[in-house]
Amino acid sequence: MNVSSTEGLFAKLAAHNSLDKLNAALDAGEAVLPPSSLYAYAAIDAGFPFVDFTPSTGARLPALEELAIERGVPHAGSDGKTGETLVKTALAPMFLSRNLRVRSWAGLNLLGGGDGLSLSEPNRAAAKLESKARSLDEALGYETDHPVHIDYLEDMGQWKTAWNHISFEGFMGTSMKMQFTWEGCDSALAAPLVIDLARLTSLAHSSGKSGALPELAFFFKDPAGTEEHRLSHQFHQLVTWAGQLTKRA
Amino acid sequence: MNVSSTEGLFAKLAAHNSLDKLNAALDAGEAVLPPSSLYAYAAIDAGFPFVDFTPSTGARLPALEELAIERGVPHAGSDGKTGETLVKTALAPMFLSRNLRVRSWAGLNLLGGGDGLSLSEPNRAAAKLESKARSLDEALGYETDHPVHIDYLEDMGQWKTAWNHISFEGFMGTSMKMQFTWEGCDSALAAPLVIDLARLTSLAHSSGKSGALPELAFFFKDPAGTEEHRLSHQFHQLVTWAGQLTKRA
Amino acid sequence: MNVSSTEGLFAKLAAHNSLDKLNAALDAGEAVLPPSSLYAYAAIDAGFPFVDFTPSTGARLPALEELAIERGVPHAGSDGKTGETLVKTALAPMFLSRNLRVRSWAGLNLLGGGDGLSLSEPNRAAAKLESKARSLDEALGYETDHPVHIDYLEDMGQWKTAWNHISFEGFMGTSMKMQFTWEGCDSALAAPLVIDLARLTSLAHSSGKSGALPELAFFFKDPAGTEEHRLSHQFHQLVTWAGQLTKRA
Amino acid sequence: MNVSSTEGLFAKLAAHNSLDKLNAALDAGEAVLPPSSLYAYAAIDAGFPFVDFTPSTGARLPALEELAIERGVPHAGSDGKTGETLVKTALAPMFLSRNLRVRSWAGLNLLGGGDGLSLSEPNRAAAKLESKARSLDEALGYETDHPVHIDYLEDMGQWKTAWNHISFEGFMGTSMKMQFTWEGCDSALAAPLVIDLARLTSLAHSSGKSGALPELAFFFKDPAGTEEHRLSHQFHQLVTWAGQLTKRA
Repeated sequence: MNVSSTEGLFAKLAAHNSLDKLNAALDAGEAVLPPSSLYAYAAIDAGFPFVDFTPSTGARLPALEELAIERGVPHAGSDGKTGETLVKTALAPMFLSRNLRVRSWAGLNLLGGGDGLSLSEPNRAAAKLESKARSLDEALGYETDHPVHIDYLEDMGQWKTAWNHISFEGFMGTSMKMQFTWEGCDSALAAPLVIDLARLTSLAHSSGKSGALPELAFFFKDPAGTEEHRLSHQFHQLVTWAGQLTKRA
Repeated sequence: MNVSSTEGLFAKLAAHNSLDKLNAALDAGEAVLPPSSLYAYAAIDAGFPFVDFTPSTGARLPALEELAIERGVPHAGSDGKTGETLVKTALAPMFLSRNLRVRSWAGLNLLGGGDGLSLSEPNRAAAKLESKARSLDEALGYETDHPVHIDYLEDMGQWKTAWNHISFEGFMGTSMKMQFTWEGCDSALAAPLVIDLARLTSLAHSSGKSGALPELAFFFKDPAGTEEHRLSHQFHQLVTWAGQLTKRA
Repeated sequence: MNVSSTEGLFAKLAAHNSLDKLNAALDAGEAVLPPSSLYAYAAIDAGFPFVDFTPSTGARLPALEELAIERGVPHAGSDGKTGETLVKTALAPMFLSRNLRVRSWAGLNLLGGGDGLSLSEPNRAAAKLESKARSLDEALGYETDHPVHIDYLEDMGQWKTAWNHISFEGFMGTSMKMQFTWEGCDSALAAPLVIDLARLTSLAHSSGKSGALPELAFFFKDPAGTEEHRLSHQFHQLVTWAGQLTKRA
Repeated sequence: MNVSSTEGLFAKLAAHNSLDKLNAALDAGEAVLPPSSLYAYAAIDAGFPFVDFTPSTGARLPALEELAIERGVPHAGSDGKTGETLVKTALAPMFLSRNLRVRSWAGLNLLGGGDGLSLSEPNRAAAKLESKARSLDEALGYETDHPVHIDYLEDMGQWKTAWNHISFEGFMGTSMKMQFTWEGCDSALAAPLVIDLARLTSLAHSSGKSGALPELAFFFKDPAGTEEHRLSHQFHQLVTWAGQLTKRA
């Protein structure tokens, strides 16, 4: 379970595209993997499921998917959906189903703690923001203007406050607005997801699943193996899938 | 389509319980129905579908359900879900599926216009507030503290701003908060729903449906014939049902 | 220092208008004073300054003012300005000085604790709301639409959250909005004011002041002896007055 | 009156330090002044007061101050205080006078229109943000964590919405919060200030004033010739000063 700080963006390399190429590069001592992917490699190679709760690269490389299938090991990720994005993916389907076109969706995240400090480095923030941005576009099904900022405020400690401003268009072009603030304790929001992910990947493993688990999309901002971001759809998939695992086990 | 101002609460009477009793009372000249129900009676009796976009009594009486079945006429209601309750029923499933227990959910609605003015009468507001309250309890599956206020502010005109404050409990009892404001133009939010309801009840009628249509719950704060308030479930039901109607027609 | 729960509104009686009449009524065993005023009488009569940190009647009766002057004792009140009204009286002068006319100013206060519980009784809330309403009208210099609600939410504990929605008019009638939320711990906001009031009334007493002290308006929602509600003006008065006291003492 | 788009930051040069050096550099054809300062030079040299409603350099150079004194011409600036900063400088004195220490004050500004577009260029935004930041520090009298962001959202048009999140510390270190949103029409907020500035600088000119006018600080985010940012103090100064001008004229 990778719950370390977010890594900076890591370049895409040819060595990532197949297990053979990756092994050759590693044998040659080339620095082709970021730490999160080295850990993922080690865990999967040793026969353990791997979960990436951060937006770091982790197991999301074709070469590591190959390894996971080969070893019969499941993995899941990326980037735990605990606050602003959780709300976004609960609200976006509302706008969609009522045909209220979202014109812009802007957000500011204020947080302290170690996570906030590490995200005050622009390269690490870039990885996080890319993950956040994708989920809204994919949930809505169209691109919208959606700037997002992250600020480290030391005095916030473990707490995070996000403000979102949504401008949307209704009947006959009427412009309307919604705003929300979310004041959450990141650790208290993440901990139960981490526990459930440990249980569910372990159950998937013992049920013979391997490779990426798209049915765990409910937990992630940027789910591997699926473009489904709508929260209630993800929950329905999770419950259905988990029910079947239980029966089989 | 009843889009008149909200009526005050009307007493429940024995004459409402069957069509025979109701007809007897009406024949005797007794004032046993509020205006919305007289209109509903007239419409249904004349073979036209009836939709109540307000929280008024309308067709929601056993005697009128009997009449609707007899005449082969569908009806739907009550109380168009256009703003605060729309958001509530999109967000409540998020808290439920993440096991974040809602401790309290308080709201203040500010609105002008004719609707705002009529709701500044306490008896009419009571009807509206009862309809609003039920939807949250039923969406969450448990009772929570949820005071709601409505204030008429002349200067708001056709616009409505609602603030909601949600206090919820996470892992190990951690208390967290969410707030939202919704700034909507009531007419622009209601108009497309009214049009869709006209089309859908007409289609249902020509497909041979009669009596209350719970599959139209998506449109209402207090849907007739169902306790399903979760917005995405309502939308799924609507789309499935409408697809089948289309095929049959 | 009266920091007990807010009393309900108490009727105005002829016995309140002079010390003679009051003493006669009390001697006759008539219940002409609420508890807060009995305490105020006792304190002042015994030669001690009295401060009312609540909106209860306390020392604000002509008869008790007479007693205070006679005994050479100062008193101050009413209703500590710790949250929503503090912000209102800081912001209202901004709108005034920029000639931005306030069309409406609506608020909802959510609070728990003993104070919240006692204010869930309508008669006690009425006393509080009257005190809150006056301060805005007097700070703006004109009447505006300003409904205010107080809700007791058990789960808020000692904390209070207030939302205010301000609609104002600018150049050529342009309608604009401001909203704020204030999340404060009532005890932590009140305690230092209570300490400062104890020090300042004691200092005023030893400097020979008696009767109501309008220069302490800075601390109160409904200051005795003045209609000055603008926060920065109140602060300037306080600092000037306190500086003179110190020199004289 | 400079109401053009904000310029990027312009380097400080030796030629700015005296009128002789500036004239020499201009005579030599050197590009030592940004457009706003060239306009200021031309206006002042021709005997007309100059007002900078933007954060651009304008008349704020020692060499141009010298010219203004020489020509007997007053000037004022910089950067019209119309929204977020207006509120900041009304609220900051409230926190100060109640000894509520501000731990952090974060903000996000969303705006469309030509001003928003020009501020989406990082170099121009830098000039604006520097002007915004200074005013809070100087109003509070100490430095606090106060990140500010500006986002251009095309769909906002002439409107601007700002969200501010203030974290402050009360009695015994209790951490509390205030948030506000301001939804204003920039043009409607700026226009009356521009008109008043034209009247007041004209009156000052005819009363014999020359050089920077610190008494007009009320209108600006970054007032020339003073560090007074507290709104009510600025208003008091303005009214006093204008009253004296009128008498003298």
